[in-house]
Amino acid sequence: IPLSRTTRCTCIKISDRPVNPRSLEKLEVIPASQSCPRVEIIATMKKNEEKRCLNPESKTIKNLLKAISKNRSRRSQTQKEA
Amino acid sequence: IPLSRTTRCTCIKISDRPVNPRSLEKLEVIPASQSCPRVEIIATMKKNEEKRCLNPESKTIKNLLKAISKNRSRRSQTQKEA
Repeated sequence: IPLSRTTRCTCIKISDRPVNPRSLEKLEVIPASQSCPRVEIIATMKKNEEKRCLNPESKTIKNLLKAISKNRSRRSQTQKEA
Repeated sequence: IPLSRTTRCTCIKISDRPVNPRSLEKLEVIPASQSCPRVEIIATMKKNEEKRCLNPESKTIKNLLKAISKNRSRRSQTQKEA
């Protein structure tokens, strides 16, 4: 039982700042639920494990998901330029 | 420091089975890194907090992300049919 989310949303403020895919430790997508009526996207950064909430409708998140999946299949070749 | 991921990938086996967005507690996307050369997508289900690794290239994951974001903006109206 996720105690932290039984009562309300996890995100307080939502950032529209772009996130560098290379600095990203992980991305969590939490669907809308009874405890929070909106999708929440939480980016955890490598540095200090800093967490940042992203706007699910922003281009930032679309580009980020694209970058992550691209990086996956071509990682060994493009790691230097990426 | 994510101790659990300093040495290797989190996922052992990857499922291609479709995931019902309504049963999904959260979705974690972990980019490729030095500890794991591939993107990992971990779905945590509401029931028993069961974790399931998904194939990032499968349609399952694309449909899931689409369903989650659709659900976001129309949740109140479509909750019954979704």
